[in-house]
Amino acid sequence: MKNTFGSSVAVTIFGESHGGAIGAVLDGLAPGIPVDEEFIAEQMDKRRSVGAISTARREPDKVKIVSGVFQGKTTGTPITFIIENQDTRSRDYGELAYKARPGHADFTAQAKYHGDQDFRGGGHFSGRITAGLVAAGAVALSALKAKGIIVGTHILSCGGVWDRSFQDIPADIAALAHRDFAVLDMSVSEPMTEAIIAAKNDGDSVGGRLETAVYGLPAGVGEPWFDTLEGVLSHALFSIPAVKGIEFGDGFGVCDKRGSQVNDPFRSQDGSTFTTSNACGGILGGISDGMPLIFRLAVKPTPSIYKEQLTVDMRTMDNTTLTIQGRHDPAIVHRARVVADSVTALTLCDMLALRYGTDYFNA
Amino acid sequence: MKNTFGSSVAVTIFGESHGGAIGAVLDGLAPGIPVDEEFIAEQMDKRRSVGAISTARREPDKVKIVSGVFQGKTTGTPITFIIENQDTRSRDYGELAYKARPGHADFTAQAKYHGDQDFRGGGHFSGRITAGLVAAGAVALSALKAKGIIVGTHILSCGGVWDRSFQDIPADIAALAHRDFAVLDMSVSEPMTEAIIAAKNDGDSVGGRLETAVYGLPAGVGEPWFDTLEGVLSHALFSIPAVKGIEFGDGFGVCDKRGSQVNDPFRSQDGSTFTTSNACGGILGGISDGMPLIFRLAVKPTPSIYKEQLTVDMRTMDNTTLTIQGRHDPAIVHRARVVADSVTALTLCDMLALRYGTDYFNA
Amino acid sequence: MKNTFGSSVAVTIFGESHGGAIGAVLDGLAPGIPVDEEFIAEQMDKRRSVGAISTARREPDKVKIVSGVFQGKTTGTPITFIIENQDTRSRDYGELAYKARPGHADFTAQAKYHGDQDFRGGGHFSGRITAGLVAAGAVALSALKAKGIIVGTHILSCGGVWDRSFQDIPADIAALAHRDFAVLDMSVSEPMTEAIIAAKNDGDSVGGRLETAVYGLPAGVGEPWFDTLEGVLSHALFSIPAVKGIEFGDGFGVCDKRGSQVNDPFRSQDGSTFTTSNACGGILGGISDGMPLIFRLAVKPTPSIYKEQLTVDMRTMDNTTLTIQGRHDPAIVHRARVVADSVTALTLCDMLALRYGTDYFNA
Amino acid sequence: MKNTFGSSVAVTIFGESHGGAIGAVLDGLAPGIPVDEEFIAEQMDKRRSVGAISTARREPDKVKIVSGVFQGKTTGTPITFIIENQDTRSRDYGELAYKARPGHADFTAQAKYHGDQDFRGGGHFSGRITAGLVAAGAVALSALKAKGIIVGTHILSCGGVWDRSFQDIPADIAALAHRDFAVLDMSVSEPMTEAIIAAKNDGDSVGGRLETAVYGLPAGVGEPWFDTLEGVLSHALFSIPAVKGIEFGDGFGVCDKRGSQVNDPFRSQDGSTFTTSNACGGILGGISDGMPLIFRLAVKPTPSIYKEQLTVDMRTMDNTTLTIQGRHDPAIVHRARVVADSVTALTLCDMLALRYGTDYFNA
Repeated sequence: MKNTFGSSVAVTIFGESHGGAIGAVLDGLAPGIPVDEEFIAEQMDKRRSVGAISTARREPDKVKIVSGVFQGKTTGTPITFIIENQDTRSRDYGELAYKARPGHADFTAQAKYHGDQDFRGGGHFSGRITAGLVAAGAVALSALKAKGIIVGTHILSCGGVWDRSFQDIPADIAALAHRDFAVLDMSVSEPMTEAIIAAKNDGDSVGGRLETAVYGLPAGVGEPWFDTLEGVLSHALFSIPAVKGIEFGDGFGVCDKRGSQVNDPFRSQDGSTFTTSNACGGILGGISDGMPLIFRLAVKPTPSIYKEQLTVDMRTMDNTTLTIQGRHDPAIVHRARVVADSVTALTLCDMLALRYGTDYFNA
Repeated sequence: MKNTFGSSVAVTIFGESHGGAIGAVLDGLAPGIPVDEEFIAEQMDKRRSVGAISTARREPDKVKIVSGVFQGKTTGTPITFIIENQDTRSRDYGELAYKARPGHADFTAQAKYHGDQDFRGGGHFSGRITAGLVAAGAVALSALKAKGIIVGTHILSCGGVWDRSFQDIPADIAALAHRDFAVLDMSVSEPMTEAIIAAKNDGDSVGGRLETAVYGLPAGVGEPWFDTLEGVLSHALFSIPAVKGIEFGDGFGVCDKRGSQVNDPFRSQDGSTFTTSNACGGILGGISDGMPLIFRLAVKPTPSIYKEQLTVDMRTMDNTTLTIQGRHDPAIVHRARVVADSVTALTLCDMLALRYGTDYFNA
Repeated sequence: MKNTFGSSVAVTIFGESHGGAIGAVLDGLAPGIPVDEEFIAEQMDKRRSVGAISTARREPDKVKIVSGVFQGKTTGTPITFIIENQDTRSRDYGELAYKARPGHADFTAQAKYHGDQDFRGGGHFSGRITAGLVAAGAVALSALKAKGIIVGTHILSCGGVWDRSFQDIPADIAALAHRDFAVLDMSVSEPMTEAIIAAKNDGDSVGGRLETAVYGLPAGVGEPWFDTLEGVLSHALFSIPAVKGIEFGDGFGVCDKRGSQVNDPFRSQDGSTFTTSNACGGILGGISDGMPLIFRLAVKPTPSIYKEQLTVDMRTMDNTTLTIQGRHDPAIVHRARVVADSVTALTLCDMLALRYGTDYFNA
Repeated sequence: MKNTFGSSVAVTIFGESHGGAIGAVLDGLAPGIPVDEEFIAEQMDKRRSVGAISTARREPDKVKIVSGVFQGKTTGTPITFIIENQDTRSRDYGELAYKARPGHADFTAQAKYHGDQDFRGGGHFSGRITAGLVAAGAVALSALKAKGIIVGTHILSCGGVWDRSFQDIPADIAALAHRDFAVLDMSVSEPMTEAIIAAKNDGDSVGGRLETAVYGLPAGVGEPWFDTLEGVLSHALFSIPAVKGIEFGDGFGVCDKRGSQVNDPFRSQDGSTFTTSNACGGILGGISDGMPLIFRLAVKPTPSIYKEQLTVDMRTMDNTTLTIQGRHDPAIVHRARVVADSVTALTLCDMLALRYGTDYFNA
């Protein structure tokens, strides 16, 4: 389905970095959910994340909702979010129009679209397109929250500096929502930022890990085959540009452990049943078990770096070199965290509506 | 879509471990593809993998094709694979009927199916259901091979013992097809087997990593958003029981690297364009770049172990203990590799048919 | 999705007229629904409809359920129905192997499958494939019935002889289930049968109309665009071989009326709201209004007739003639009615599960 | 999928009659297709169809394309069409806010959206939403035309006055594109218009029939089950508000005919194969046969009439009456024809891309 994802609650995204507008259509969400435009704006700001380590455009990413909201609440019909591109003046893209930037999608876009793609600023491949996901995701997050389901993502590592993990400690994930630089242990914020600036000073960039937790998801959501919770979430989350891996619970950590270390024991107490550890990340057999759902994403370093790189001229396929100019983020992991929250929320809204019906979020 | 996956080429699976039969329906594959029943049987044998480290049922997993093949070739209409369960005599499942096995889906099945699930031998959650995927996958692998696309999976690590990686060396992945224990470096076969047997002797089990490579995939397959190659493959691959993580190319390795180390340089030579490294695993912007597609799966240790475990009685939700009897594999990673090949092949057939049309495989 | 239909509750069909077996996989239906094998057998018999006006094979269409049913109830996982073809001995199909039968799909099958299709007895295009739909539909009908939703189809016209319409009279649609020849006015049974036999004696065949009613469908099911009740039902119902038209409520009758004749007035009485007429067939804006859902299907005459017909030899595309031998039904409308019930039931199960969740049928 | 339709080429629609904007996202169409904004504007004008028999808003329905078009051609990524609603000033809707208009979706919207729907001017159910389909459809029509596939719809009947049929005569369907009032026989234009005005003068409305033909569709498109050409087209076409029936080829006419009258004979001449009649409407076994694809739609009279009607107050469900004010079309069949062309084109683009691949339209 290309630019549409979801069966019962579905999101469609559109736009190019330097086109007229970008945005999203969020379809199938229950009627009657209050739409908090201020919260949407806050989420948009988190994605832009201006400052020394980010080079967001100066434009404010103002979201216009042109359908699906009436008297401050969702109507149950498609909600359309439009973010006009301000800075779209025609200019000379020079060699970027034909030289494939290493680590970017220029070469594969050429293979797929035969030269008709909008190459300006990465076109439809630009990370900017995630703004539509963040706008739609904000409404999805509100819908989940009203049902007691909270989503939170933090920077688990960046440039080799590590935060604590959701796996090790009980975490106040709600607090993450209010942090500009989303870490659990506030003391790692400075060394992480320094690692990013160090890379920047070298004309280079750094990668990192995001860790997401979902609290309050009921047990019994997901399918044993194909539409496993892991599978459906992964399908959506690999859309976040630069993500190259995902792991649930102990993830790749399970490979070197024994069954006795990985099997989470079940216990009952005071009428509730739970596991005393969470190596499975809240998912068994593709289905939620009622414990926190936990996963981690591998985010590669920004491919736009200032060092000279080897590449080809796509007009002739001759060998050449490329030195990228302009302003580019030396890391994107801190901006991607709100995208991870958004995509997770959109996906879970769909899974929950499929499981409990389209009125689930207004019941 | 639960038990169906794919848009143009789709596979549907069905069955329970101790029901009448298991199987799969493979729909949408082009007409005219020779169906090699001997190759299907070989693939089924790899999945069963009898021997000291495996405890497959004694039944031979004979695949019966009841539709979609005529005069030895695919007709273009649904191909149905049926594998009758031989050993389905009624017996007393004792406490397994109501005690949730840690690490298994018993508890989540109860949350989803409210007690009506077939609990015998894991029912529809059983790894045995992958037999249908392997049968269908064998035809998909043949279809790909005829187009010069080869899929191969090896055991990258098991019980802490490592094989070489596809990332480091050029590998003859076709040779893997003929190995009973799929490793690139034959010398690691023995220590891996020993690690598995050591766990078995402890009444425990071990996990491992699978690494898959696809050679010959044309550039330009996949989508920038949602239906990225990574996303669609992940969606399908998390159906393989015990998989808890997936990473493409350098995967989680990119998190601690800099952009200059991760950006694969483009070069042209003798009329072909390629990258001189493959940190991206053959995928940029969700689309194949013509280089080998490479990914790794985290496979958790078999949850069936012989140690006493804490659990709950699902009739009353009281705390209790469970000691699993019977014969169970101390590792599944070596059996899962043929499932990884199969699911990869099925997914790529769909992506290729969407890209190039339903006649792609008979053109 | 070709041979799979449905999002939450989905059916997949497979098989060829003279292959090993035909059947269906019914996925996504709630757990805990009693499966009545006797009712399934009755439905299969209605489809076969032996007698002077039908020429069903002698084989009894015995349905084997190999998955998804445990202890007499659905498990919530895929239910697989298999009907083995008894009469599959190899024989000489003569000119039917290469001459396109007018009104049949031989010519279009050739265009799509390039000669690799199974041509024997129509292969995958055979009306026989509907047996799988009827088996799956029987379980869907039971699930609906348990929620107070009743589906019934009668022969509105056949060979120019008309039954009364659901639009004109309150009808006991439940009684239709027990009639071999499904008409509301029992007195039309004989003239209809005579019309069929008259055509048969001429070596010809007759068409007819089916009319279906669904009682008890709650208001609020369906979507304003694309997934309208009319649209989704039509999508599925055109799979019934020989159907060339569908109309809801007054259908094509509305074309020659005025708004004042077609707008159904709303009234409330004793706490329930209804319309005093039902020109809209129970659907407004694509969504059920709580009144009986009513539609009619145009069924063309059986294309297999005994008169000499003009056609082409598909090996050479030369002009030739064809005279069909063997036994063929002079009408199929009376056999198709149970298929209409089945397809309607399967489609509504999906729409209801999407609307109210996957536990709707066991709540 | 609610407001999204299509697998390979998909359209998503959004908006409400009096919301901020309406529009569509067209995804999956091949790159490199010239986008003719003038043709889009012409199509929009046909839908508005101002004059004595139409009461379109005065606003010009200006289409803004904000993504997916670069340098005058499609990029292969989502094309977004936005039509701002001009006349959206807040005003008192009076009793229309709570009285269910007979023949409209007010009552079913209430059942589905529980009062949160945007009721103003029919909200998301308004015929105005088809403007997005017409904009997207214009690009689809251009894509088809470049491949030699022409779509044309005319008013077969309106208010009891009939045009000639595509079934009877060879027709220059391309000429229809340039007619304001789309009839084949220009002499019926006046009596049809008079019938519409007569109804208007009575405070009433009239229905009619649309007939669509597609020339140039290659043989071999469509599927034998579920995704039959008839089924997929119907699924989409029932989205056109007021459509209550569809029939292909001879449609309901086949019900009263014999097989010998309905089987279209095959002939070959000068290297091409065809049928000498077209009772099947260009489709056999769900698959195109290379002849013109022909179908007819039943369009009900506009439900907005000026006579007093019986209805209920949806706040209390008490009986009441309603007299609709304002300006409303006494017929919509003449405006709907361009919507029929558009929806047909969008659906065929999807079917063709599934069959021949995503590069079909730029090959």
